[in-house]
Amino acid sequence: MKCGAQLSLYVMADDFVRVILSSLDAIEPLREYLRIETDDISTLIVGPSDMIFPVMRELFVAAASSGHHVAMHATISRGCPGEPDLVTCEPVKATVFDVDLEGRKALAAKAVEMAARSGRRVAVQFSLYPLGPADYMDEIYGCIDFLKASPVFDRAKNYCTRLVGDAGPVFEALSQAWLSFGDPNAHVAIDLTASANSPSKDAAA
Amino acid sequence: MKCGAQLSLYVMADDFVRVILSSLDAIEPLREYLRIETDDISTLIVGPSDMIFPVMRELFVAAASSGHHVAMHATISRGCPGEPDLVTCEPVKATVFDVDLEGRKALAAKAVEMAARSGRRVAVQFSLYPLGPADYMDEIYGCIDFLKASPVFDRAKNYCTRLVGDAGPVFEALSQAWLSFGDPNAHVAIDLTASANSPSKDAAA
Repeated sequence: MKCGAQLSLYVMADDFVRVILSSLDAIEPLREYLRIETDDISTLIVGPSDMIFPVMRELFVAAASSGHHVAMHATISRGCPGEPDLVTCEPVKATVFDVDLEGRKALAAKAVEMAARSGRRVAVQFSLYPLGPADYMDEIYGCIDFLKASPVFDRAKNYCTRLVGDAGPVFEALSQAWLSFGDPNAHVAIDLTASANSPSKDAAA
Repeated sequence: MKCGAQLSLYVMADDFVRVILSSLDAIEPLREYLRIETDDISTLIVGPSDMIFPVMRELFVAAASSGHHVAMHATISRGCPGEPDLVTCEPVKATVFDVDLEGRKALAAKAVEMAARSGRRVAVQFSLYPLGPADYMDEIYGCIDFLKASPVFDRAKNYCTRLVGDAGPVFEALSQAWLSFGDPNAHVAIDLTASANSPSKDAAA
């Protein structure tokens, strides 16, 4: 399988370097399972498709725990024809794609319901891009149906969907969007933005 | 046409609110041509497809002029079936899509060569997603060929391409990637991250 993400962590504070480096420490124990490489724009993680969003949750919750306004952007990709095919990217648990769209929506909802809470409130917005098939909007609309029925759904925005709530169920909803929609062997990308501790007067997290 | 972007500006400094608000002032005179709406995660801009990247350049150069380490993320979309079709999104200049892929690569290169310089060095990485057609990788590979031959090309990264240089030609290269690859009537998205004034020892900008 081909799977990974480019993550960028942003800390709106003078001591941003310390907060970013100590947040990266939170995912250091996972080096055994993941390829992790940081440059001046982003941190690459390559690993099992069902570990990608839990890793991002740990990284972002660690940064948010600083109390500063923090944000994270991620470019997440699986199945890109230009990337190497790696055994290390196979999901830890089998995916559920061999059930129809309605069945996948129900299983995704159940996973969000069962997600452990982190105690940290976050707001995210993201876009799902299944590349190649002519009927790609069916998977996107199926994913949007699942999200709209989820307790972490906030609202549709232009070009993306916005979720708000505890980081546990929010990142589980993202992981389900990622794993349950768009054929597991297809090229699928997600563009994700997360925010916590925003001082905006209308901030949800 | 359907065209716009969700932009998020990040300033790694305690006085981030002031820098973000004064940077948004830089695009205030463009309200005549664009719909602009800001919430706690991002600023929506909707307008002519060939104004999207010049607007982002102005916003980002204004933020970078603060001297702080600044970053920007943008989710850019055109032709999304779920968005309203607006006359205000039509490009100011006619697009050049009625020439073949080789011709479009040459015209895009010429536009980068002629771009005005801003005096501000930036690093960006981005991914282009043409949705729907089975041969979408042809447009992506055509775009990568154009970028590789460009003076602002830095390197290919996993899941994205990295450009470095003056903000003028860098944002012109992004605009050309956006306008010249992927059918003008198709659904195309870009996931973009920009960085300036990074303190990383290997930083390019």
